[in-house]
Amino acid sequence: MSKQAIGVVGMAVMGRNLALNIASRGHAVSIYNRSREKTDEVVAEYPDAGLVPTFSLQEFVDSLESPRRILLMVKAGKPTDDTIAALKPLLAKGDILIDGGNTLFTDTVRRAAELSEAGLHFIGTGVSGGEEGALKGPSIMPGGPRDAYDLVAPILKEIAARAPDGTPCVAYMGPGGAGHYVKMVHNGIEYGDMQLIAESYALLKGVLDLSNEELAKVYGDWNAGELDSYLIQITAQIFGKKDEETGQALVDVILDRAAQKGTGKWTSQSALDLGVPLPLITESVFARVLSSLKSERVAASKQLAGPAAKPFDGDRAAFVESVRRALYLAKLISYAQGFAQLRAASTEYDWNLDYGTIASIWRGGCIIRARFLEDITRAFAADASLANLLLAPTFAKVATDYQAALREVVTTAVQAGVPVPGLASAIAYFDGYRSERLPANLIQAQRDLFGAHTFERIDREGSFHADWS
Amino acid sequence: MSKQAIGVVGMAVMGRNLALNIASRGHAVSIYNRSREKTDEVVAEYPDAGLVPTFSLQEFVDSLESPRRILLMVKAGKPTDDTIAALKPLLAKGDILIDGGNTLFTDTVRRAAELSEAGLHFIGTGVSGGEEGALKGPSIMPGGPRDAYDLVAPILKEIAARAPDGTPCVAYMGPGGAGHYVKMVHNGIEYGDMQLIAESYALLKGVLDLSNEELAKVYGDWNAGELDSYLIQITAQIFGKKDEETGQALVDVILDRAAQKGTGKWTSQSALDLGVPLPLITESVFARVLSSLKSERVAASKQLAGPAAKPFDGDRAAFVESVRRALYLAKLISYAQGFAQLRAASTEYDWNLDYGTIASIWRGGCIIRARFLEDITRAFAADASLANLLLAPTFAKVATDYQAALREVVTTAVQAGVPVPGLASAIAYFDGYRSERLPANLIQAQRDLFGAHTFERIDREGSFHADWS
Repeated sequence: MSKQAIGVVGMAVMGRNLALNIASRGHAVSIYNRSREKTDEVVAEYPDAGLVPTFSLQEFVDSLESPRRILLMVKAGKPTDDTIAALKPLLAKGDILIDGGNTLFTDTVRRAAELSEAGLHFIGTGVSGGEEGALKGPSIMPGGPRDAYDLVAPILKEIAARAPDGTPCVAYMGPGGAGHYVKMVHNGIEYGDMQLIAESYALLKGVLDLSNEELAKVYGDWNAGELDSYLIQITAQIFGKKDEETGQALVDVILDRAAQKGTGKWTSQSALDLGVPLPLITESVFARVLSSLKSERVAASKQLAGPAAKPFDGDRAAFVESVRRALYLAKLISYAQGFAQLRAASTEYDWNLDYGTIASIWRGGCIIRARFLEDITRAFAADASLANLLLAPTFAKVATDYQAALREVVTTAVQAGVPVPGLASAIAYFDGYRSERLPANLIQAQRDLFGAHTFERIDREGSFHADWS
Repeated sequence: MSKQAIGVVGMAVMGRNLALNIASRGHAVSIYNRSREKTDEVVAEYPDAGLVPTFSLQEFVDSLESPRRILLMVKAGKPTDDTIAALKPLLAKGDILIDGGNTLFTDTVRRAAELSEAGLHFIGTGVSGGEEGALKGPSIMPGGPRDAYDLVAPILKEIAARAPDGTPCVAYMGPGGAGHYVKMVHNGIEYGDMQLIAESYALLKGVLDLSNEELAKVYGDWNAGELDSYLIQITAQIFGKKDEETGQALVDVILDRAAQKGTGKWTSQSALDLGVPLPLITESVFARVLSSLKSERVAASKQLAGPAAKPFDGDRAAFVESVRRALYLAKLISYAQGFAQLRAASTEYDWNLDYGTIASIWRGGCIIRARFLEDITRAFAADASLANLLLAPTFAKVATDYQAALREVVTTAVQAGVPVPGLASAIAYFDGYRSERLPANLIQAQRDLFGAHTFERIDREGSFHADWS
């Protein structure tokens, strides 16, 4: 019997679609699912796809070429641990396990160490692009031992999305948990992008009272310019969609409680651990949480009045353009924070991340794909040691040109009572980052006064404590 | 030989001062430190304080009345674990260990479980007030088994600070990690208070160009009103302090890099885990981190220009009053977030926290002591199930009266290029919390479109997925 080149464990939608994607490139793929019904279903639905069903882990393992290449597409956390524990005794030295789930990077580090003791390779890889990306080409962010990556790279390159220039959206991220970490930050950035777009929507609707048709047109127009991206494109599409039941715009029928699955939260928690400022993504995570407190908000809206509504009496087209500029600059500031976090993580965990490559493999397949990422790749190509994206000449120019718009939009929102935590946080970070002097000297004085925590001086090295009495 | 009522392990400044505090109330106190020099030093410095030195853990344990009451004042983390491991075999069933360090509450839960198996009681207690508080009367937040607390309560009440009405600033917080959790949130709130004061300073100095003498007077005036608090008082004091070396104001000689010890970070990370919005304290943690990037900021200040400086042409006294109101309302919003987090934690961990009592024991001894806390206690006395402090009538009125000032101050800062992450986050939270409708419907639409994550509808229950094509 001939053996298969690769096997996929887990036939939920992401695993099934990745298996179909691999098979569509001419590879024979073994599939396995804990409950046999899912496996039967997939084979019944795609009888000619070239998927080879197996119904025990032993049968699955026996069906694979050596060294075995096994892609795990099971739930992150305990289900992944359980699957690894069941597979481990069936595998041979040199076999390669690839975890394609949204796994916390510290779990990947732990599993890699455990498996390495048994001579097994473990690759933790980010896979972005949702259902459709998995099927037609996702962005893939693998991390782990380099030699094991090389053994799976040919297949990963075939199934990955293509960037506009034809390059496959996959690259080796680094050892250990690097792949899952990069994917986590990708998701955090996605939270930021979505929150900023939501705030632009709140402003265009709340201040200018634009209709859904007008909103569809505005986002469509924006998508033709420097904001060109998947999320802006689908935003335009969303405003054009009717609810089949009521005939209303579907977006108006959807409840305003944003859910989340935890990767944004992890990104913020890691930034706090690393001591790197990530306020915009964190505000975005908290904004989702606040949105979920719907009943509290409804109650509060009856007790806490805001400013009286005033009709907008400025230039409407100019305000739309200001919102566009504010959105673009805030997005840039969010990416500056995200890439600074990647840099801090790379230093802390010794990953040697290549930031330009990371931006380049996000150009296709994934949710945050955007024209803007080309500029990021170019910025790191020009200066690989760039401390912050805002310091790249192209982006410094965006900041110079667009900051007046961001200030105007935040001011308008604050005066109108429209919550813009992301935009407001963006300008605060920008102003903080470009401040030679911040009022933190007062904080150090307070800490020294009440806790003898000491302070540094501006005029010479050392650590000092004053007698404040 | 007579035995001592209580023993203290760890003779660093907090342990030493707490031991002196207990002894000053007429209790005999055994003391022990890992290195004997510290013990000798303390006894030499305070020969008549009534401290009984011991030089081995066995001698220390043997010197205590049964059931033994042992206060651990060693570094949080591994040193605490090591001390407990060394003590444990020497103790008898019913003995009580009290950890008074800044311990992460999950460590307290773990240690309590381990010690409970051996019949030992473990109390994790927050102690706030710095060196001076420890000596003269701190605010004490103990958590653990109620019956063990009752055995140490008389001493804790004697050594605690007194609130203005004479009540000791100590109360049983709840089981498990409740005490250390409340202390953690206390510290997070302290980060928020300090950041907001720093922003008010940046505004008064950056916009109005007030001198240090004028600043001392402004904060002194504020301390006579509703902002009356320890932190405002010491802020006034700080602006009056000269540097002995240069003759300049000391605050101007202090480097603007704020340090931190981790409890603010923990507070934010826990809020993210609990899914409760805590943007203001989190912005404060990130502001400290950003301040610490001094060399990056200095470099950025040369490349990223802000708005051109403009002399202030408004009513100066009116602006000072606006800053005062903005600070007070933002402080209220920060406490609203912190108490909402306590509520979420109480529900999650089943602690049955008493929020009014918590506010009341913060009135004395601790860093955030303030007149304002009386109002919080009253608000919870009027409605123990208050979902958010902003909904208490007194505070809703503050929000109504002061929001115009907060909006004006944030607007002025954003236009002037002064970073106010805390104040800006405060108004964004306020406007978000009082929004019946947020733009999160768009986020849910996006998530359903790209990931089939489903959405809820406003018109009926259930979970829905649209065909967006």
